[in-house]
Amino acid sequence: MKTIWWDQGRVFLINQRELPTTLKYIECRDADCVVKAIRNLEIRGAPAIGVAAAMSLALTAYNSKATERRELEKELEECAIIIKGARPTASNPSWAIDRVLDRAYTTIGSVEGVKETIIKEVLTIADEDIHTNKLIAVHGSALLESGDVVGTICNAGWLATSGEYGTALGIIKFAHEQGKKISVIALETRPVLQGARLTAFELQQDGIAVKVIPDGAIGYCFSKGMIDKFICGADRIVWSSGCHTFNKIGTYTASIAAWWHHVPFYVAAPYSTFDFTHRLDDILIEERDQKEVTEIFGHRIVPEDVPVLNPAFDITPPSLISAIITEHGINYPPFKTHITPLNRTEHDLGI
Amino acid sequence: MKTIWWDQGRVFLINQRELPTTLKYIECRDADCVVKAIRNLEIRGAPAIGVAAAMSLALTAYNSKATERRELEKELEECAIIIKGARPTASNPSWAIDRVLDRAYTTIGSVEGVKETIIKEVLTIADEDIHTNKLIAVHGSALLESGDVVGTICNAGWLATSGEYGTALGIIKFAHEQGKKISVIALETRPVLQGARLTAFELQQDGIAVKVIPDGAIGYCFSKGMIDKFICGADRIVWSSGCHTFNKIGTYTASIAAWWHHVPFYVAAPYSTFDFTHRLDDILIEERDQKEVTEIFGHRIVPEDVPVLNPAFDITPPSLISAIITEHGINYPPFKTHITPLNRTEHDLGI
Repeated sequence: MKTIWWDQGRVFLINQRELPTTLKYIECRDADCVVKAIRNLEIRGAPAIGVAAAMSLALTAYNSKATERRELEKELEECAIIIKGARPTASNPSWAIDRVLDRAYTTIGSVEGVKETIIKEVLTIADEDIHTNKLIAVHGSALLESGDVVGTICNAGWLATSGEYGTALGIIKFAHEQGKKISVIALETRPVLQGARLTAFELQQDGIAVKVIPDGAIGYCFSKGMIDKFICGADRIVWSSGCHTFNKIGTYTASIAAWWHHVPFYVAAPYSTFDFTHRLDDILIEERDQKEVTEIFGHRIVPEDVPVLNPAFDITPPSLISAIITEHGINYPPFKTHITPLNRTEHDLGI
Repeated sequence: MKTIWWDQGRVFLINQRELPTTLKYIECRDADCVVKAIRNLEIRGAPAIGVAAAMSLALTAYNSKATERRELEKELEECAIIIKGARPTASNPSWAIDRVLDRAYTTIGSVEGVKETIIKEVLTIADEDIHTNKLIAVHGSALLESGDVVGTICNAGWLATSGEYGTALGIIKFAHEQGKKISVIALETRPVLQGARLTAFELQQDGIAVKVIPDGAIGYCFSKGMIDKFICGADRIVWSSGCHTFNKIGTYTASIAAWWHHVPFYVAAPYSTFDFTHRLDDILIEERDQKEVTEIFGHRIVPEDVPVLNPAFDITPPSLISAIITEHGINYPPFKTHITPLNRTEHDLGI
């Protein structure tokens, strides 16, 4: 299954707000449509919105009436600023945009030639994402033993990526395919319930046993010995601070509870999620619409005029992370020394 | 405001499932009606269901056609078993029932005389609950300073008791009445959302600033220094183990996160919540209907056939509790040595 794909100047994506009850697609013919889908969480998951960001540039290029290269570049740059603002905490959109823009700047040839190159690069990014996540799955599966119950939060499955495997759930799925008996406890993940809706849906489709719990029940489940390992995805991993990990709100709370119970806490993410540029304090945590918390299916649950906090992400410090699994292997603390020599690829030029 | 009251053979209680949008009352003319309200969480909160349990016995006595004392006692004992099973994890119903039954057994006189005595004892329990919680509020308020932001979970306000103050929120309200500037961060408390619905409603009514957060955001709020102290209620405090505290699911997770951030974690509860009889392992944690998690306002959020875990309570160990506030004062660890000499009342015969 694919989450997002390109078809002759149109981008199709699964509307994840409608899952698990309905499988609907959104068809986008311009970048604005994709940006709106990112903002509304119709597409979400750091790798998936990285690909969506790239697809926005592809649409911008495809629809461009520019006759000069600089004109086209300006259109792409304007589009890039809007996309980067759509979900500012996630790293992957910036990574994908910078890669595509870099390709545009460094390609020799006519406007039409650059357009073609951009679209090709975007499709490469989408394909690579699937390959990358397969590698994460293969590497990470070494951490799982038959009989393990794995805790997870939000959705870090194929829906959070271009398709097929996903990051955290990819590891679980690959271990399952290897014949290991793995089951999952999924945090429902308020406010948007990606765990209850998406993770449970994916695992059920794959024939992997899953139970959903309210987010507050994570401590209880650890205390009862119900969870052997915890694996989550990431929206941004800040290199300069030693790999502080931004992920869905609730991840940090779960990581403290895992630590208290001596349960390994793993982060699974591709290199495109690593931020090799910013300092930790530079990263804004997106505060989303109050209605995500105050209303559920149109029913008011918080009294009128009572405010809520709705931070979309929190930060798990490296001291609470047992390993970070990337497409290049399993990295144990201290992450800095281990990642550098082992993982030199064309993408991590920032090192 | 009162949560539950007696009026000539009828028990009235606020239907807490309808709050905050609607204020409706339930009128019960027999014990079954009260038991149903307890099971459905139309009335909840350990002190309140203690009073409700007592009121069930009052209704049983009031409606009894018994002509012999033993006949009446048997009716009361049968009723007692049913009530004790309605929310087995909470301690207060058992405490209230045992107190009323004891009164029935030890009263001299006719059936009609015993009936009257029982009803009088039940009304005393309801009145005492209000007085007790006022004392908790007075004692606990010494722990709060002007400017404090207090975290809390579920609802431990007047709705969780006979009325007026409540336990954890009583402390906050009394400090507020003393002129201290106190504000609250309330966990929404999935699955039944007592924090979002009831705690926010109560505090808003009392003019105390409150913000609601998704349960998973508690770690984030601690990490940002947003919460100075955390206070919760309790459903059962097990004496023999050193005061392990059963409270709403999510409390234990919050207590670990508080400990990690060096935020004091207080439990506020009357002596009727203490269990001086059982061992920790003897206490069952009630597993409630899956639908509380799988459906919200009739909308399915978990795919069909995916199971959920819905434990109503978790257990916070004494090592994570900074103090327990009762009607007799503030008890610091180790709780055992401090409670014994300081707090001798007619209720703690179990010591």
